[in-house]
Amino acid sequence: MSRVIKFAKAGGPEVLQFVEVDVPAPGPDEVRIKVKAIGINRAESMWRTDIYIEPVAFPAGLGYEAAGVVDAIGQNVTDVAVGDSVSVIPSFSMNQYFTYGEVVTLPAYAVVKHPTSLSYEEAASVWMMFITAYGALVEDAKVGKGDFVVISAASSSVGLAAIQVAAYQGATPIALTRTPAKKKQLLDAGAAHVIATEETDLVAEIMRITDGKGARVVFDPIGGSNFPKLVSIIGFQGIIYLYGALAEGPAHLPVLDMIAKMPVVKGHNIWLTSGDEARRKGAVEYVVKGLEAGALKPVIDRTFRFDEMVDVHSYLENNGQFGKIVVTV
Amino acid sequence: MSRVIKFAKAGGPEVLQFVEVDVPAPGPDEVRIKVKAIGINRAESMWRTDIYIEPVAFPAGLGYEAAGVVDAIGQNVTDVAVGDSVSVIPSFSMNQYFTYGEVVTLPAYAVVKHPTSLSYEEAASVWMMFITAYGALVEDAKVGKGDFVVISAASSSVGLAAIQVAAYQGATPIALTRTPAKKKQLLDAGAAHVIATEETDLVAEIMRITDGKGARVVFDPIGGSNFPKLVSIIGFQGIIYLYGALAEGPAHLPVLDMIAKMPVVKGHNIWLTSGDEARRKGAVEYVVKGLEAGALKPVIDRTFRFDEMVDVHSYLENNGQFGKIVVTV
Repeated sequence: MSRVIKFAKAGGPEVLQFVEVDVPAPGPDEVRIKVKAIGINRAESMWRTDIYIEPVAFPAGLGYEAAGVVDAIGQNVTDVAVGDSVSVIPSFSMNQYFTYGEVVTLPAYAVVKHPTSLSYEEAASVWMMFITAYGALVEDAKVGKGDFVVISAASSSVGLAAIQVAAYQGATPIALTRTPAKKKQLLDAGAAHVIATEETDLVAEIMRITDGKGARVVFDPIGGSNFPKLVSIIGFQGIIYLYGALAEGPAHLPVLDMIAKMPVVKGHNIWLTSGDEARRKGAVEYVVKGLEAGALKPVIDRTFRFDEMVDVHSYLENNGQFGKIVVTV
Repeated sequence: MSRVIKFAKAGGPEVLQFVEVDVPAPGPDEVRIKVKAIGINRAESMWRTDIYIEPVAFPAGLGYEAAGVVDAIGQNVTDVAVGDSVSVIPSFSMNQYFTYGEVVTLPAYAVVKHPTSLSYEEAASVWMMFITAYGALVEDAKVGKGDFVVISAASSSVGLAAIQVAAYQGATPIALTRTPAKKKQLLDAGAAHVIATEETDLVAEIMRITDGKGARVVFDPIGGSNFPKLVSIIGFQGIIYLYGALAEGPAHLPVLDMIAKMPVVKGHNIWLTSGDEARRKGAVEYVVKGLEAGALKPVIDRTFRFDEMVDVHSYLENNGQFGKIVVTV
């Protein structure tokens, strides 16, 4: 028997329910895991409210990230063995697989061995944050030396990952944060510049830093009515990635600026990378290399217990954290 | 002496003023033209109101397009000779050069010989419309067989050019128009489908036509609060070009749809193609070939006289035309 979390309807954190289930033997291409830690991310909050990238088939499980020990493997599985410490790449539909449980079954392609230097809490944290940032900044934009990369909501786990990935690529990461409260933490996390947007003129400051050229890349999970400022700070034919919907309602796109500077605004999510076998393998290799080199480091905000999952989702939605929320099982 | 049009401040059509000027001998890399016809386009209306891609240095001339006869050439000019029939590629700053005049001087690189089958009115019409469409659909998106290309404001000159260019590439052009009034004209112009958006459910109709896949490309000069519908009709990782600002205010970008389908929204204008020598030459070659093959045909809405330029700008801004407005000189 395993305690897992299911929800029968879309709604607030209170819709999450603990249920006891039998977890059958894994199918031929599946792996069963005893979960030690679960990484928490915004996609799961969007999934819970049924506004994520595919409709929820109720009742549903949830969870994209976890680390634990292999408990059983299907007959075709060769990459991991029973007893291995493994973690989970977000690369499946949560209508089919999920990680919020004591014992869970996942597709074998999503289960990887991580560097042994990582704790379970850390291993449960790394894939969503680093692969999301890697997919945009490395795979797509190929940022490098001389590129200014502006990262909004920089204290989020993916924001912190983007700072590290941009720096690892030799680019100049510029972190945006609302107030000066997290300024020092963001500099310590690798940002070359930190701009507190409530007290500094964002556009003037970016133009100062970039000698009037603007940023080559903006990486934004907010959207909303402040989005025109992100178009104002982009350089000619720059790229803006929009990977989250933290602001309510549509992002505002300033059309004249778009026509003048001809930037590209791209919707982005981890699927673009993790949903394709070759790209997923490339991403895992990149992140493992970065972790082993010490260039990429998981940043954990706070650790909760599995019992506290309703509180975890409330905490997540308060947007106050610095880094990743992790749940231990 | 030459009568030319200048304006001393931004404003409505009434700011346009006729002035008599001496046109000096062309510089080493310039060509002087006796203008026979002027093509009119939206960029000039934006220029007149000083909301175009660069600030206006007053007093300023205006005009991107013209056809006429070479009157004098600079010492370095070898591609055209006095007496040649030529037309003008929009590829310069209107702070430096302009076409609204009886005799005008232009940079030699912007002056080309066009197919002799074209009248001056037609020759003054083709470059803005076809190069703008070519830059997006051919150079960038490389549309071809099997691609559905949705063209909004389809009765505009660039919209009609996009229909023709998409069809010439073997793609399926779908024209959007508000009412059924221009439906037959748009089908005659080469649209495979015409959707009257005020009477038909746009999203349902595109999904029906595309078997649920959505369009690969949307080509839009409107933006505004209806923009989310254009994201709804785009397929996975499709491309939306935003090349005009016919709607007031920002375009609304539906963030969740952007994250789910990961489309690309690109600001677009002719400069991307015409501002680069190699690209401009490729575009001219493509358009000339298409014109000679009969696949591309200028569509002229109405011809005015040079004296009527104030009325021309008012007429342009009423958005009722089908094709290009041309002024004869």
